[in-house]
Amino acid sequence: MPAMGPIDSGFLMVETREHPMHVGGLQLFTPPDGDGGQFARDLVQTMHDSPVGKRWRMRPATPVSSLGNFRWQVDDQVDLDYHVRRSAVPSPGRLRELFELTSRWQSGLLDRHRPLWEVHVVEGLEDGRVAVFTKVHHALVDGVSALRLMQRACSPDPDARDCLPPFGLPDSSSAAVQSSGLPIPSLGDVMRGGGGLAKELVTLAPNALKVASRALRDTGYTTPFEAPRTVLNGRVGGARRFVAQSFAMNRFRTIGKGAGMSFNDVVLAVCGGALRAYLEEMGELPDTSLTSMVPVNLRNDVNDVGGNNIGAIIVSLGTDVADAALRLQVVHESALAAKTTMRELGSRQIMLLSALNVSGLGLAGIPGFLSVGHPPFNVVISNVPGPKKQMYFNGGHLEGTYPASIACDGMAINISLVTYDDQVDFGITACRSSAPSVQRLIHHLEDALADLEAVYA
Amino acid sequence: MPAMGPIDSGFLMVETREHPMHVGGLQLFTPPDGDGGQFARDLVQTMHDSPVGKRWRMRPATPVSSLGNFRWQVDDQVDLDYHVRRSAVPSPGRLRELFELTSRWQSGLLDRHRPLWEVHVVEGLEDGRVAVFTKVHHALVDGVSALRLMQRACSPDPDARDCLPPFGLPDSSSAAVQSSGLPIPSLGDVMRGGGGLAKELVTLAPNALKVASRALRDTGYTTPFEAPRTVLNGRVGGARRFVAQSFAMNRFRTIGKGAGMSFNDVVLAVCGGALRAYLEEMGELPDTSLTSMVPVNLRNDVNDVGGNNIGAIIVSLGTDVADAALRLQVVHESALAAKTTMRELGSRQIMLLSALNVSGLGLAGIPGFLSVGHPPFNVVISNVPGPKKQMYFNGGHLEGTYPASIACDGMAINISLVTYDDQVDFGITACRSSAPSVQRLIHHLEDALADLEAVYA
Repeated sequence: MPAMGPIDSGFLMVETREHPMHVGGLQLFTPPDGDGGQFARDLVQTMHDSPVGKRWRMRPATPVSSLGNFRWQVDDQVDLDYHVRRSAVPSPGRLRELFELTSRWQSGLLDRHRPLWEVHVVEGLEDGRVAVFTKVHHALVDGVSALRLMQRACSPDPDARDCLPPFGLPDSSSAAVQSSGLPIPSLGDVMRGGGGLAKELVTLAPNALKVASRALRDTGYTTPFEAPRTVLNGRVGGARRFVAQSFAMNRFRTIGKGAGMSFNDVVLAVCGGALRAYLEEMGELPDTSLTSMVPVNLRNDVNDVGGNNIGAIIVSLGTDVADAALRLQVVHESALAAKTTMRELGSRQIMLLSALNVSGLGLAGIPGFLSVGHPPFNVVISNVPGPKKQMYFNGGHLEGTYPASIACDGMAINISLVTYDDQVDFGITACRSSAPSVQRLIHHLEDALADLEAVYA
Repeated sequence: MPAMGPIDSGFLMVETREHPMHVGGLQLFTPPDGDGGQFARDLVQTMHDSPVGKRWRMRPATPVSSLGNFRWQVDDQVDLDYHVRRSAVPSPGRLRELFELTSRWQSGLLDRHRPLWEVHVVEGLEDGRVAVFTKVHHALVDGVSALRLMQRACSPDPDARDCLPPFGLPDSSSAAVQSSGLPIPSLGDVMRGGGGLAKELVTLAPNALKVASRALRDTGYTTPFEAPRTVLNGRVGGARRFVAQSFAMNRFRTIGKGAGMSFNDVVLAVCGGALRAYLEEMGELPDTSLTSMVPVNLRNDVNDVGGNNIGAIIVSLGTDVADAALRLQVVHESALAAKTTMRELGSRQIMLLSALNVSGLGLAGIPGFLSVGHPPFNVVISNVPGPKKQMYFNGGHLEGTYPASIACDGMAINISLVTYDDQVDFGITACRSSAPSVQRLIHHLEDALADLEAVYA
């Protein structure tokens, strides 16, 4: 039984009913011959016949958490009937009904007696598309890697019929994803890297976050904008919503070109506009602007993603600004200022800060975080580059790939997006009670995009 | 915030990922006009428009278990979108696909931030039938009461269109179910009744089961047959299977008449035959016979169900006997002997023993239970009288009503059956790993029934 690293153990230890610690996402496929039911059954058959990579056969040896670390145990009898699950969308089979299912799945805890993953294959969508919802524990694979694996399982060749599911990919491929320079380092990556500061954080039990809190202070890093207290930054319950939507990338690009700003600026401004409308509708819009933590690549060359060049910035979303164009301007300037600040910090400090922010472990463990003062930021918005061309899985056309992430105490909404060829795929994970009816954000995103198009397109 | 009784708190405290403590069951309806999708949507609409009785608005005030008792809190904003869930059976829409869904639902923990119940309305069955799967925490209502409430929500009038869901029934009706003399007392009922012996069991935290163990010994009650150790009596995981099947009651009656034995004798012999085939298939059939704990009414008049006349007997299932007719004989004699033993015990002793056995709390808390010696019995088989005539819910014909129960350490299979007019509805709840592929029991039940018919019908 290989020992589990303290970080991965940490992900299991901090997990409660209220904080499921799994990541994953949704993929939508158009079946090659239009028969969704048949494609779904074939998909399930392919998965059943697939080998299961070693990583996907690992389960915690001790189902009950303890003060010590967990150990991994290799499950020699993985019950694929359990892990690969068929479902159907109830009538009338719209995305709305699909999101009722994905929300439910994103809420439930994985069974620790088994390898920590589930795949749901869903038929019954009115247009014949087939959905695949994947759920993997963060102790097994981080969110970005999960997404990469799902993409890597696909092929650019529409005629390829030898695609294997993510859990069936050769371990070397799977390992490559783990060790490659990812745009977002997991806290585990930082910890494994060693370093004096990092070593202080060697366990992640809630009390250890005191150390994290101190480390954060010691970096001398101050947020350029103070985040207001909002309904999105209290305690969360156990239920989640997961909703998703694709937008044409060209819409963002056109606005960016017209305004002379980056794609990311436009994305953040659109999110800001949507969050403003969402909170206003609830009568919960604060006077000062919401801020977002945004993982960023600090180098210009996107292909050069060495660990030291990764960071996270905190950006104002301009939610206090009613005018869409002005909001974009505010976001742009805020992002510029934040990037400058980050450049002045040491690389290890940046990584630690980023990793803490994106680790999904929540900030509630830092004493007083929830009750005193202001949150360090209000939401997390992350942007991950996806496939640059159209992809297929055994002939099924990948229509979209939407990341699901973790909501936690202090951070009720996570917005993740993936660029896929000529589109941008949004996945929104939120606490069902403290961020009620978060599916409305989808419509607000569309409206915010249209508002900017009215000015710049 | 009303205080929660120590017993109901106990049900919450002993609950873990491995021991979900909810009960409920499956109901199958034929829609009045054959349109399953429409009937399902109407059903959901009826539930959404329904009032929510006080009991169904109660949630634990503290989501995290503690050493003290839980308190109930009344939820004034019950989110029916959360509690009432639509689903569909994937193609080809057989019962097999339905049971994949019910098994999944029976496995997951209820969200303690909300009232502890869920209703799943399922369309997409190939024959247009609509399934309703209900899940209620044992702290809220016991299994028999849950079943009664589901039945009480129905009407014998096929033209009635004013049926309310169980959670919308007037509280008095709901309370009546709770306080009526039920064929099986919950442990809570026994405890609330007071009495010196019962008072010893005032908390149900695992250590308190030591007291239970002693009380059990002190009754002087010995089991007429020693139960062998089987794969069904070890530790369970968190995943469940729930499968169900109706049989014509006449088949059991005809055999009973032919053999000169009771309906219950035939039921137990059929279960014994099925369990024998199931274990034999796995190469796990023990040399000596499995025994079953069977809750029984000790008076002949089924309408007289005063608390003192309720008991539980332990009966040999004759699984060591290959011949079906001989097995029925063994079961008959064993049941007769067990009933005699029970009559000689004091009524309070019987109730305590029965309640401990049927409480679903598991026996693993008794030190050494799992590792030393023999289990007190191998399975639980309970038989609850249901409606005596055909029932309807807003025009939908109730085809069957199948109870789902609790599997726990030491007891991986629970077989519950309900008599409904001219049929017998079996619901089987089992641990997915220690009782693998328990759906096979359904076929084995049919075979065992046919074997007896070959002799007596």
